[in-house]
Amino acid sequence: MIDTPDKPSRSGGRAGRRAKRQASSSPASREPYVERNFPLFRLLDEDGLQTIERNADIILRDVGMVFSGDPEVLLILAAAGARVEGERVYFEPGMCREIIQATAPADFTQHARNPANSLHIGGRSAVFSTVGGPPFVHDIDKGRRYATTEDHLNLLKIGHILPVLHATGGPCELMDVPIPERHLHGTYYQFRYSDKAIHGSVRSATAAKDTLAMARIVFGERYLEDNICIYAGVNTNSPLVLDDTMMAALKIYARANQAVLVSPYILAGAMGPVSIAGSLAQQLAEALGGLALVQLLRPGAACAMGTFIGSISMQSGAPAFGTPESIKGITIAAELARRLGVPLSCAGGAVTASKLPDAQAAFESTLTLQASFYAGVNYISHCAGWLEGGLTTGYEKMIIDADICSILQGFNKPLDLSEEGQAMDAVREVGPGSHYLGAAHTMRNFETAFWKPTVADNNTYEQWASEGAPDTAKRANGIWKAMLVDYQTPAMDPGIHEALRDYRDQRLKEIRTGE
Amino acid sequence: MIDTPDKPSRSGGRAGRRAKRQASSSPASREPYVERNFPLFRLLDEDGLQTIERNADIILRDVGMVFSGDPEVLLILAAAGARVEGERVYFEPGMCREIIQATAPADFTQHARNPANSLHIGGRSAVFSTVGGPPFVHDIDKGRRYATTEDHLNLLKIGHILPVLHATGGPCELMDVPIPERHLHGTYYQFRYSDKAIHGSVRSATAAKDTLAMARIVFGERYLEDNICIYAGVNTNSPLVLDDTMMAALKIYARANQAVLVSPYILAGAMGPVSIAGSLAQQLAEALGGLALVQLLRPGAACAMGTFIGSISMQSGAPAFGTPESIKGITIAAELARRLGVPLSCAGGAVTASKLPDAQAAFESTLTLQASFYAGVNYISHCAGWLEGGLTTGYEKMIIDADICSILQGFNKPLDLSEEGQAMDAVREVGPGSHYLGAAHTMRNFETAFWKPTVADNNTYEQWASEGAPDTAKRANGIWKAMLVDYQTPAMDPGIHEALRDYRDQRLKEIRTGE
Repeated sequence: MIDTPDKPSRSGGRAGRRAKRQASSSPASREPYVERNFPLFRLLDEDGLQTIERNADIILRDVGMVFSGDPEVLLILAAAGARVEGERVYFEPGMCREIIQATAPADFTQHARNPANSLHIGGRSAVFSTVGGPPFVHDIDKGRRYATTEDHLNLLKIGHILPVLHATGGPCELMDVPIPERHLHGTYYQFRYSDKAIHGSVRSATAAKDTLAMARIVFGERYLEDNICIYAGVNTNSPLVLDDTMMAALKIYARANQAVLVSPYILAGAMGPVSIAGSLAQQLAEALGGLALVQLLRPGAACAMGTFIGSISMQSGAPAFGTPESIKGITIAAELARRLGVPLSCAGGAVTASKLPDAQAAFESTLTLQASFYAGVNYISHCAGWLEGGLTTGYEKMIIDADICSILQGFNKPLDLSEEGQAMDAVREVGPGSHYLGAAHTMRNFETAFWKPTVADNNTYEQWASEGAPDTAKRANGIWKAMLVDYQTPAMDPGIHEALRDYRDQRLKEIRTGE
Repeated sequence: MIDTPDKPSRSGGRAGRRAKRQASSSPASREPYVERNFPLFRLLDEDGLQTIERNADIILRDVGMVFSGDPEVLLILAAAGARVEGERVYFEPGMCREIIQATAPADFTQHARNPANSLHIGGRSAVFSTVGGPPFVHDIDKGRRYATTEDHLNLLKIGHILPVLHATGGPCELMDVPIPERHLHGTYYQFRYSDKAIHGSVRSATAAKDTLAMARIVFGERYLEDNICIYAGVNTNSPLVLDDTMMAALKIYARANQAVLVSPYILAGAMGPVSIAGSLAQQLAEALGGLALVQLLRPGAACAMGTFIGSISMQSGAPAFGTPESIKGITIAAELARRLGVPLSCAGGAVTASKLPDAQAAFESTLTLQASFYAGVNYISHCAGWLEGGLTTGYEKMIIDADICSILQGFNKPLDLSEEGQAMDAVREVGPGSHYLGAAHTMRNFETAFWKPTVADNNTYEQWASEGAPDTAKRANGIWKAMLVDYQTPAMDPGIHEALRDYRDQRLKEIRTGE
């Protein structure tokens, strides 16, 4: 058990200063989520949106959706008016939408164990969440390898420190831990090493139950009844299947009044038609089916619609990210979710197929992040760290992505049109042909006027060269190392901590002895 | 003189295929510019826009603008109603706007010597232009060094090949050529080695006159009288100065009925107030003063308003790009230009302070490119190649940026809502739990359905590793080399070519002998 691997050494030097800059928003001053201050970017007209909605309805009516391995769900759907044939369920046009719109909240609060980090999900809000789940990790020192517990903790701590990230998840798999035990460690680590809002495990019914039990220890038994403390991402198995494992998790979280995200994962050409309009219709159909089930299980339960549309090369089968098709899909999906009246979660934050924290990784990630933010996505997943189509979490990539998130969040700061912001006294003072470096207005404002980069290097060529000419990845490497040195475990009530550990250890014992 | 440095060797291998893919749009099939198919992204409300416009008017009335070293211009401005004190000129609120709106065209065509490459500038169009002007070049083989004629030609040829770039410029300085001779070589090279629309030299009155003379040789003497064949970027000397060199070029091009861009270059905190609202007002004031002069010189002459707002670190003085402030400035400037009724040119395409074609270079460039494209900028300058705050043109950066431009241009392709695009037959055929790889709809559409990357690598880790694990820059290196091998000089009438060379050589002789 690696519970307190913090080293007592000191950070310092350039990387240390960079790390401090990136972490400079203290928990007290940082925003727990972003409230957009700009008109959303829209792409499709009313006719186009209606076409996709109509097609989703036709898919649900004529093709149906499979809810596999769960007779109870089939009974619930049949009782609500769906036509059930075997495990295939057909919905009349408008039925799912009606069920969802009758009871699903348009927005909700997800509580973090530190109330300062609680999230608003929906409306004009944007939550930036770290990468979740890759089995590999990469850094420029050791390259790519299977993720271990040490990596998991390191990345969790970096994600906790980065002020632009609002929610944690398992930043990589615990490949050195047996599968049935992973959720116990992962949930414990999320609660212990960060106090930001968490993701719930959907690995199995057991995992979902354990996650809830541990959340009840942290938040209090009764608190969970009326408050959302877990955000659980349930993937459909596209095309048009909700499998028994995911459905089990969906049922448990929904019935416990926790937030359920129903998210298709479509690589168009493989899990969806080789067409964005077609994949959007199928995606909407899958979300409608899944979210209707959530509302039937627990009317009023918090839920969100997910979107993920990538494309694959039909020559090689390789998935691609940051493509025109991805950006288009995100932008239109955001509209579709608003029209449905539920928050949109986009598993297309800083996504890329690149194997390295290089230019491709950066431009693909930026394109989808900027598109998600402009379009109004409420919960942007995988905002920092993703590499290699989600197979790898990159240490340096996490730091680089955080700077991109930071620029977008800085963009959200409204244009200052106060008298001081208009700066007319400065223009009058300086006049033509001079400069503003020493102007009174400049002296009053330069410290806070502009966004400050972290990993970006804006020095002269000569200064940069004198420092060893480090590329972005090299600088990011220094930053994450300094962050790990500076990391401080957030406070937790000793009694709660003990109970949490006891629960984990007890359950591990049960699993190992087959009880 | 390096007139025909093409090597007869053959391209091939992976880089060759990548190069072909990036250059795959033949001159016949490629779009000469982009007509936007989406609603523009807007940031500021009516009140905010009016505040900036009012402040620009107040600046022109109370602070004025210096038009230096040109008594004729002062007489023209005074005759139009401005108050002239020395070289400082004060305009009553609304005066410049009225002059501009009375005669300036809202949009215009810039002709290329190949009519298939002629540009529409204004309206919903976007022109993507290559980088212009850096004194250094960089590639990963030889690092950073002063730009030579060989580099100039190489980069010009790469820019000519890349289908996503619509206009050329001098892609780097000719540092191995004496300054007074550079424009003659540069203009000759632009005309000879590309048939895309060109930039006019603004280095001096002589340079502008020579550029016009050479354009008349290429297009025909009379053609230039009624047709715009040159786009000339005139920078104000912020704050609030139009100097004699730039003014001389402005006068010559405007009187010759060629397009004049009046573009401030503001690093807020140095050449403008340390405030975006303040720098936007000053920028608008400078553009109003310069564009009013253009219209007074030649009513109806084509012109464009420029925007460039970066920020500097007030600690180090280093300029920064791709910042929240830059993106905000671009987005608002696009609105201000539309309200003025002239096209907007943004010298903020793929801009970055990075010294290498790495992650920082890619994310900064993407942020400004995406912002410019979404906001409706009509002429996006420096779309490919810029490094180190505009001091360096990068060979690999050019290839990487072209992929970013290509994704944005792919995004512009309207969502296919035809019956085939809706793909409902595919969803019906495949049904739940299967896949689309062999579906009839997939087979009919997979070749053309989706955008194809060039420099991006979407292969598996194993395949990528087996190819030597190249990063993006390394792959870009192979692409530009293959492009240079494949480059074909566009056809030019031999008589025109001879006349063009003769003019250049005669003028070089005159300059060298001091005639």
